[in-house]
Amino acid sequence: MIERAAVLSTGDELTTGRIVDTNSSWIADRLFALGIDVTAVLTVGDYPDRLAWAWKHAFELADVVISTGGIGPTADDLTSEVLARVLGVPLVEDAASAERIRQLFAAFSREMPLNNLKQALMPAGAVVIPNGLGTAPGYRVLHHGATHAVVLPGVPREMKPMMEETVLPWLRGLRGDEVYLSRVFQTFGLTESGLDELVAGVVDPAAGRLAFRASFPEVSLRLVVHGRPDEAGARLEAISARLRERLGPHVYGEGATTLEEVVGQLLRERGLTVALAEACTGGLVAHRLTSVPGSSAYVRGAVVAYDNAAKQVLLGVRAETLTAEGAVSEQAAAEMAAGARRLLGTSLGLAATGIAGPEGGTSAKPVGTVVIALASEQEVATRRYQLWGTRDWVKLLASQIALDWLRRHALGLPVIDSQLFRPRSS
Amino acid sequence: MIERAAVLSTGDELTTGRIVDTNSSWIADRLFALGIDVTAVLTVGDYPDRLAWAWKHAFELADVVISTGGIGPTADDLTSEVLARVLGVPLVEDAASAERIRQLFAAFSREMPLNNLKQALMPAGAVVIPNGLGTAPGYRVLHHGATHAVVLPGVPREMKPMMEETVLPWLRGLRGDEVYLSRVFQTFGLTESGLDELVAGVVDPAAGRLAFRASFPEVSLRLVVHGRPDEAGARLEAISARLRERLGPHVYGEGATTLEEVVGQLLRERGLTVALAEACTGGLVAHRLTSVPGSSAYVRGAVVAYDNAAKQVLLGVRAETLTAEGAVSEQAAAEMAAGARRLLGTSLGLAATGIAGPEGGTSAKPVGTVVIALASEQEVATRRYQLWGTRDWVKLLASQIALDWLRRHALGLPVIDSQLFRPRSS
Repeated sequence: MIERAAVLSTGDELTTGRIVDTNSSWIADRLFALGIDVTAVLTVGDYPDRLAWAWKHAFELADVVISTGGIGPTADDLTSEVLARVLGVPLVEDAASAERIRQLFAAFSREMPLNNLKQALMPAGAVVIPNGLGTAPGYRVLHHGATHAVVLPGVPREMKPMMEETVLPWLRGLRGDEVYLSRVFQTFGLTESGLDELVAGVVDPAAGRLAFRASFPEVSLRLVVHGRPDEAGARLEAISARLRERLGPHVYGEGATTLEEVVGQLLRERGLTVALAEACTGGLVAHRLTSVPGSSAYVRGAVVAYDNAAKQVLLGVRAETLTAEGAVSEQAAAEMAAGARRLLGTSLGLAATGIAGPEGGTSAKPVGTVVIALASEQEVATRRYQLWGTRDWVKLLASQIALDWLRRHALGLPVIDSQLFRPRSS
Repeated sequence: MIERAAVLSTGDELTTGRIVDTNSSWIADRLFALGIDVTAVLTVGDYPDRLAWAWKHAFELADVVISTGGIGPTADDLTSEVLARVLGVPLVEDAASAERIRQLFAAFSREMPLNNLKQALMPAGAVVIPNGLGTAPGYRVLHHGATHAVVLPGVPREMKPMMEETVLPWLRGLRGDEVYLSRVFQTFGLTESGLDELVAGVVDPAAGRLAFRASFPEVSLRLVVHGRPDEAGARLEAISARLRERLGPHVYGEGATTLEEVVGQLLRERGLTVALAEACTGGLVAHRLTSVPGSSAYVRGAVVAYDNAAKQVLLGVRAETLTAEGAVSEQAAAEMAAGARRLLGTSLGLAATGIAGPEGGTSAKPVGTVVIALASEQEVATRRYQLWGTRDWVKLLASQIALDWLRRHALGLPVIDSQLFRPRSS
């Protein structure tokens, strides 16, 4: 029975402070949803003795040890070698993995440095965990017939799908009768404390557990229930329905979805097309929308008009508007949105203009001033916001508001959320 | 002598994945700069047995243990109680800290819940580390007369000044003469193993240590040297010069910089302006370039032409080109780049067109086919690439190649890197 896990994060980049370890938090979050208790996260650099120390202690602390990092091709990738020693088994080449590595190099007509084959070496008895996005396969292997070692690459974009597709389903299978079921609600527009107040009293603590996770500007809310499958499933649905009702349009999606995916699906369902006119967001709204597969069905294009001449020439913003109101104004945003819509012949035109900083602010229009506009056949809606934070942050938050306007429009809601970022009690 | 440190991060929020532990990375970075080797980071939740386990092992691994979290007023704050037990000393109230806590509450005219005085309890023998921004003081205390425990709050805005103002100066005093110095080289265009081969033999292991970090498509290389300040500084420079020579234009920057920052600085220095024509990258190139403060000096704007009509109407791509060659072709890319340059009146026009997938590939132009073009006053350069991976990945890699073309052009190098992603041995 798998009840306790230890997470092992390896790499000098972690113990010298070059990067923040986001893997272990992500893994702990997924294990938490399965009801598996993470007893410890152990982080060590690329030294055989430290790795061996960490593996030995991790096996003492847990039923399953999940390790990330140290399985690449270079000399400082030591995980498999050290683990084999701790397990007391030889390292053997996994023929299929070696073949796949050879093929990957062949596919790109590249000669393969021999050290790449090192990635196919695994402790004897290992079961491969396929890696669709990189050359290093992962694997799992038993320790003394009792505890499990799961070895994954440290690159998050490879590690995460390997967890989702192979490791988590396998762990779920080992967990036995009672299940932990969870549902995540993705929200935008309320602070964490505002959301907390809003859902107060909705969930009886004996029936389910709520946890917030703020990856601002998004705040997600996770509901976890525990019990026998049928009963727990029914309870999950009942509580979810109550949460949906309470949260209303602040929830933009459920499960592993993004705002741009939700917007894309709504636009597609309603047969809407969109053109973007971006100033302060610099292409970020277009980038986010076009990150969704199939987005060419509803994104016609975008104009990133970073200077005033471009706003006039490309989008038809009037010189008088720029002179009288400035490029960061409701009038300019409205003309940008209408101009993009006309230019690309779409049903909707969406514009964002503002001062992302750190330079360029004035007392009338400080850094963080952002105006969003949405032009449709019927009307042009505009609103000025006062955002805050670094340049990256202003761009991100402005893009999030802009996408949320598309969502609200497609749902027939007022595009302007008067509650935006207000705590519930205010 | 303090040579090895362990970092202890405590709190259920870390082992259930509710937050990412940024403290330990920050602390490790500061210790690295002092030449103190972090042998391990141990992360456990708020359980007495797990905390005791972590403290005992941390003392075995290090000369100094730096702990964050678990010294607040609530029942799950267990650090001081557990540490006193591990040290075998009683908990005693620090009178000055207790008085300060009382005064803080009085200053805000708030009644003090009695549990707040718990924060003034410390293992006997502790030396207070003042906390200017919160109620919980930190402290340091000796373990068996040999190793040091440093106990700090988990809130980053309290912990960091306590480290900077008290802990680091104290550690510096204990360290003596020798320093560790480091330099990071940011590279693009070679695989990690290709880079590894390229620098083989450049650094005598006794003189310095090299570590790679792939956050593909970027691979960074860190050089660390150790010794007395003057001599180590000279050695760092000497080895850096050899590395620069060996790596040549694959290095785009040194230290904490990004490709978009480097490109921005080069464009600015050379008085170049740029207009973008993006198809498959969907605005990502514009987003990246405009993420750099001051980028309005050289980014005039971008056209994201996601469908063929937009390519024709906005960028002047000829209908014959689209019919005969298709939108993903060297000819179409060349016309897009030239069109963007003309439209926005810039010195350079940069275009990216391709098939980001997962749909839309053909046998002649499979998913991952990307064409980059750069138009200048003199010429239009184009090249077709076969990239790989998910949609996000194709977009990212295409944007990276496009930015690298700008860098190469500004440096007077051929924009096309014939070595791109080839391991060194090929």
